[in-house]
Amino acid sequence: MKKRLAPLVIALAALGATDVRADDPLPSWNKGPSREAILQFVAKVTTPGPGFVPEPERIATFDNDGTLWAEQPLYFQLFFALERVKALAPQHPEWNDKEPFASLLKGDVKGALAGGEPALGQIVMATHAGMTTAEFDQLVRDWVKSARHPKTGRLYTEMVYQPMLELIAYLRANGFKTFIVSGGGIDFMRPWTERVYGIPPEQVVGSSVKLSFELRDGRPVLLRLPEVGFIDDKAGKPVGIQQHIGRRPIAAFGNSDGDLQMLQWAAAGEGPRFCVLVHHTDSEREWAYDRISSIGRLDKALDEAKAKGWTVVDMKNDWKVIHPFEKR
Amino acid sequence: MKKRLAPLVIALAALGATDVRADDPLPSWNKGPSREAILQFVAKVTTPGPGFVPEPERIATFDNDGTLWAEQPLYFQLFFALERVKALAPQHPEWNDKEPFASLLKGDVKGALAGGEPALGQIVMATHAGMTTAEFDQLVRDWVKSARHPKTGRLYTEMVYQPMLELIAYLRANGFKTFIVSGGGIDFMRPWTERVYGIPPEQVVGSSVKLSFELRDGRPVLLRLPEVGFIDDKAGKPVGIQQHIGRRPIAAFGNSDGDLQMLQWAAAGEGPRFCVLVHHTDSEREWAYDRISSIGRLDKALDEAKAKGWTVVDMKNDWKVIHPFEKR
Repeated sequence: MKKRLAPLVIALAALGATDVRADDPLPSWNKGPSREAILQFVAKVTTPGPGFVPEPERIATFDNDGTLWAEQPLYFQLFFALERVKALAPQHPEWNDKEPFASLLKGDVKGALAGGEPALGQIVMATHAGMTTAEFDQLVRDWVKSARHPKTGRLYTEMVYQPMLELIAYLRANGFKTFIVSGGGIDFMRPWTERVYGIPPEQVVGSSVKLSFELRDGRPVLLRLPEVGFIDDKAGKPVGIQQHIGRRPIAAFGNSDGDLQMLQWAAAGEGPRFCVLVHHTDSEREWAYDRISSIGRLDKALDEAKAKGWTVVDMKNDWKVIHPFEKR
Repeated sequence: MKKRLAPLVIALAALGATDVRADDPLPSWNKGPSREAILQFVAKVTTPGPGFVPEPERIATFDNDGTLWAEQPLYFQLFFALERVKALAPQHPEWNDKEPFASLLKGDVKGALAGGEPALGQIVMATHAGMTTAEFDQLVRDWVKSARHPKTGRLYTEMVYQPMLELIAYLRANGFKTFIVSGGGIDFMRPWTERVYGIPPEQVVGSSVKLSFELRDGRPVLLRLPEVGFIDDKAGKPVGIQQHIGRRPIAAFGNSDGDLQMLQWAAAGEGPRFCVLVHHTDSEREWAYDRISSIGRLDKALDEAKAKGWTVVDMKNDWKVIHPFEKR
């Protein structure tokens, strides 16, 4: 589909067209209220009249984990971290007796994560800091090229949601600037978001470690320090949006309580607003989880979406296909 | 000039043209090595061949104070802060006996700033924090509309450099994405950079205070806290570039030692690089200052520019006009 859509999008964008419905721009979306809400919102903000929004203000923000790609059985970035722990273990003999590393190295992920956020923090810092930004970039590129999802055997970048790819392309064809606003690491996402989503590095907002500029033998490097710089989750998302984008999105897409404040922030602006939750309802083609899941918990945000009339995408019923590889 | 150039730029951009020299794109630049260096660099990166750079990698970063607009006799943001101190004084009777406010309120700016960075920090926090982002945005918009430069009587946004406006437009017409990377406040610049430079809020990198997301009577706001979030100066500039843009610029423009690390960072990448310092050499039409100035000191960076063959713009000899209002 991406290949078929691209020339159309380019042709229509060149003509300044704001309506690509002539050839269905959302072929992986079943007819129904979610698809209809997307089309109506885009028509409203692109049509001269009371709901019209000038192009520079057409900012759309997307959560990544669980919204643009899958997040089960663990956040994919955690699989990257676990692989790095194994690769680094020979240089850290002390990890054999030190949690959470000892459990990890025995293959007991659950045991390692039983230590909660402090354990997670230790794993992230041990694997995401202590190298230059260029070195980290290369580690991510190598991993993304080869690592495979434990359930599907697919590359992680294949585990993206086809309907969301279509939605992103449709918004961009209608003058939107699309941003990722994710709790995931900003520099973990940037090496592949342009290729996979068409979202360039400068339009990725995420969590970060502190950086330090240094001259090494006269050559400048940026060192990744084992210190949290910013956590782009929950109340951090509107903060990240303001610091990075400086405008309030008119459309925001998430899937969990971690996205609630981003949706509240988008919803509170003037003019037309579009707030969307992707609800994981498909236990056969994907995973079904919401209120009691430890990953991607969707509880308060689901209540608020219902109370405020936000769009809740029902993956099982709204999506014809989940991943691009299902299409042949 | 801006008005005359804009249709040309748009027309050529639509044609995908990479050479706008047919009608001089830099009319306020005298013929000479600086102008020639600009034209040669742009020709090199846009012409298929060994120096070609794909459009997404054509990132150019500009310092603001002293590079895009003037910075004498004080950074313009400081004039904004001083006006705010006066406006807020009735609510702060204690300021009459407390430095640096007491001196400021007596009109003694020099005395107030004698307290150095801590004094400056107090002034900035008292005037840039303690309100919502929306309230601060409005304060800046109001100030920019009415405040006037003490020497020229012009609006501060008229004190921009005409040759740099042409340069920014020329780069954009050649597929560059232009960013501001300034020690100034990110949210102090954003309300006017799009109108004045054509640089949208999401392409402004600057210093910031910490923000806090809160619900006020159920309505979300972002509060500006009296706490430094990030200082986008000196070694902070490459850090700000990485955190915000995530790509290394191929062209960087500054005017002081505060820009040295940004230029070093840009220079150290692969392929063609363009590092430029604007040297304030015109005591008649503007100000002449460099190695011993307390504002915009240009000392180490000037030495490094000479050693490394970076382009040093001589304002007096390279620029036909300084500000747009000189043209009639």
